[in-house]
Amino acid sequence: MKLQFHYGNVLENQVGIQGLAEKEIIKGASRLKKIQQSLQKQREEKAVGFWDLPYQESLIQRIKDTAIHVREKFEYLVVLGIGGSSLGPNSLHQALAGPYYNYLPLSQREGPSVFFIDNVDPLLISGLNDVIELEKTLFVVITKSGGTAETLAQYSIARGWVEKELGKEQVPDHFVGITDPEKGLLREIINRENWLSFEVPPHVGGRFSLFSPVGLFSAACAGIDIEELAQGGRDMDQESRRLDNIFDNIPYLNALIHYLLYQKGKDISVMMPYTNALYGVADWYRQLWAESLGKKLNLQGEAVYTGQTPVKALGATDQHSQLQLYIEGPADKVITFIRVNNFSKDEKMPPLEPENSETDYLSNAHISELLHAECQATQTALTRNQRPNCLFELKELNPYLLGQLYYALQVQTVVTGGLLGINPFDQPGVEEGKKATKRIMRHKKGK
Amino acid sequence: MKLQFHYGNVLENQVGIQGLAEKEIIKGASRLKKIQQSLQKQREEKAVGFWDLPYQESLIQRIKDTAIHVREKFEYLVVLGIGGSSLGPNSLHQALAGPYYNYLPLSQREGPSVFFIDNVDPLLISGLNDVIELEKTLFVVITKSGGTAETLAQYSIARGWVEKELGKEQVPDHFVGITDPEKGLLREIINRENWLSFEVPPHVGGRFSLFSPVGLFSAACAGIDIEELAQGGRDMDQESRRLDNIFDNIPYLNALIHYLLYQKGKDISVMMPYTNALYGVADWYRQLWAESLGKKLNLQGEAVYTGQTPVKALGATDQHSQLQLYIEGPADKVITFIRVNNFSKDEKMPPLEPENSETDYLSNAHISELLHAECQATQTALTRNQRPNCLFELKELNPYLLGQLYYALQVQTVVTGGLLGINPFDQPGVEEGKKATKRIMRHKKGK
Repeated sequence: MKLQFHYGNVLENQVGIQGLAEKEIIKGASRLKKIQQSLQKQREEKAVGFWDLPYQESLIQRIKDTAIHVREKFEYLVVLGIGGSSLGPNSLHQALAGPYYNYLPLSQREGPSVFFIDNVDPLLISGLNDVIELEKTLFVVITKSGGTAETLAQYSIARGWVEKELGKEQVPDHFVGITDPEKGLLREIINRENWLSFEVPPHVGGRFSLFSPVGLFSAACAGIDIEELAQGGRDMDQESRRLDNIFDNIPYLNALIHYLLYQKGKDISVMMPYTNALYGVADWYRQLWAESLGKKLNLQGEAVYTGQTPVKALGATDQHSQLQLYIEGPADKVITFIRVNNFSKDEKMPPLEPENSETDYLSNAHISELLHAECQATQTALTRNQRPNCLFELKELNPYLLGQLYYALQVQTVVTGGLLGINPFDQPGVEEGKKATKRIMRHKKGK
Repeated sequence: MKLQFHYGNVLENQVGIQGLAEKEIIKGASRLKKIQQSLQKQREEKAVGFWDLPYQESLIQRIKDTAIHVREKFEYLVVLGIGGSSLGPNSLHQALAGPYYNYLPLSQREGPSVFFIDNVDPLLISGLNDVIELEKTLFVVITKSGGTAETLAQYSIARGWVEKELGKEQVPDHFVGITDPEKGLLREIINRENWLSFEVPPHVGGRFSLFSPVGLFSAACAGIDIEELAQGGRDMDQESRRLDNIFDNIPYLNALIHYLLYQKGKDISVMMPYTNALYGVADWYRQLWAESLGKKLNLQGEAVYTGQTPVKALGATDQHSQLQLYIEGPADKVITFIRVNNFSKDEKMPPLEPENSETDYLSNAHISELLHAECQATQTALTRNQRPNCLFELKELNPYLLGQLYYALQVQTVVTGGLLGINPFDQPGVEEGKKATKRIMRHKKGK
């Protein structure tokens, strides 16, 4: 079972001058070997750590063992984290746990209900305590550096609740930490109070941490097969090493397509899955693409102000919101669809009464058929209007194919960084805001 | 209590050549009088119907009366609709019902739990029946035309459930319709079976229907004060009629700012509320802006392929996802922040143990203070990097201020349409896809 990728609708024989010639792709591919070598070197030198995450089999086993215990003991799992500490696990949960997971009675789901608290929103945080029972709640605190202000803020409040209601000595039983193995405030707390914890390995950035405990722990607690997920990652890693035919290497090909189209003025990269289950993946991709590629300086230190803007859209819903713009507006977009062929549940549409010629085609069809037809129709409409688009196709929603997709998008991103000549692993632009926040808070306190 | 708008950070004295000179704004404003006259003419001729929706006081009373009955009788409200039939009511619910509304016990909330089914996703639709009790469920079917394929598909399935479980004769007790007063399949069903129903007046497009029963009915059922919402709309309508000083007219000013910045290459309009409660408003705006302004032809029939791409972002969350790109990437964005000053709930952060100089500023501060500081810091960082940004400020989350905001954004959109010289009320680009969907479905059936 393999992730499929269809790129025909980015070619100029489909979308005219807005698209790419095959020979352009082949010519562009000549740069890829060198980029691959450079990435391989970083990997071997352990300067970049995400590559090998899916291979940590004993860690995966340890997470699975811990999850069994969590699923026995807790009814609520609350993930405290922001950015890369939330988007990965949240998207995985949305993709595989189903849209009504938290609403099902405990007996009908695989584990505790799961809440991702990914903001310092007063209503989001204080309302939580009204809908969980603290004695049955496990808080998972995720911050790579161990010092993320928003996450520590959330943690301080949750800890306050636990101390007040259950007593200070209960804290280590209700908190798990996922952070740097040695450094940072969270690690200090973990060591001092002997919490259960997992590590984000050094040289793994937040947005590349999905295959680490950051992504795996809450997934395992919800009964998602993380071994299958990792297997998908490993298989995509192996596949993406082969560069003999660019058209067979999904992430390198899609990196090149996006790079070449960006050079032609496609400043916006839309990801549009045709299922609510994968809308979170589009959100995860949004961070990966924006934060990795949105850079002022290239590797030579020259100001380039580069980066395609990622946009998430949802099919079929956004046909009634964004499609008008995508079809008739400026020719500044490349659209990546994601389609799932088979769903684990489906419904047949009973005939409407009265029925008319506008609706008879719905009678006795499955809802999935309508969704697939809309996906195909949207691709066709965009293509006829010379809007380049490509498609990831998954046979079904399962952890193995998801693992391939997540890993492929990570590789695609770093290869695009190579083509742009920038460093995809830093985020220098956000430091200023962090410092300013601190200054404003201190000023208010008169410090 | 008034909606506040701050535009200082779009001016060139703050963001240099990426911004606007005051005299540019004043000069541009000379076009606005004529646009206003033209809009006023459409309004008087009833060619465009959204303007007067907040003035329908007897309708609002009827909706409130019906809602009392619904809140007594039903525990689940399921809204079936897509695009403008869902984004408005959904955003209003998110803004005012709180993030955990559906999780609270019935006794602790104002009405039935509310589900918005806004897609033809097999998992989203078939999973619903596992978490509602049909005998306590009211389905609200919303389609302006009465023939939207996705909504009729959802309806046919929900009706099938009700017929099977409760009997065909129970259908009129469990369905409410909101649609055209005379035309379309849904109106035909309503009339034949004597359903309770409300009207979307003619000449009110889906994306402009928030102040009609489309937006008001589910809100009233969840206990939201729709009279206050309408009052906010009416007051903003009155305010936005005065054009003597452009700087006092929020929607006309922001239309002009967006138009002038679009001329200067700001191809992307980001809306970034600093609270999860208003993320839905950003999604609603996304449809309003994209579908109204994304047009191939201008009013003279010339091909212009115009339209800023709207993007939704969430503060503070997306500081850890999109901000790097907004600060260091291409200078192609104008950002609209929304800030809420006071929240109905808040939490104080207990001091961390151990505490260090990186975190001491959090101790004993409220979570809202951190959120506000981050909003301010982000504005400052963007401004220092010459990225134009503006801010809507709400004293609190209440229906009256929300009414002002929704109405202002509608006026802003149609005025921008006037400046661009296009028709903001049609969506010709999406017809092709609808036809193609039908063709594909028929082909599959061998018809």
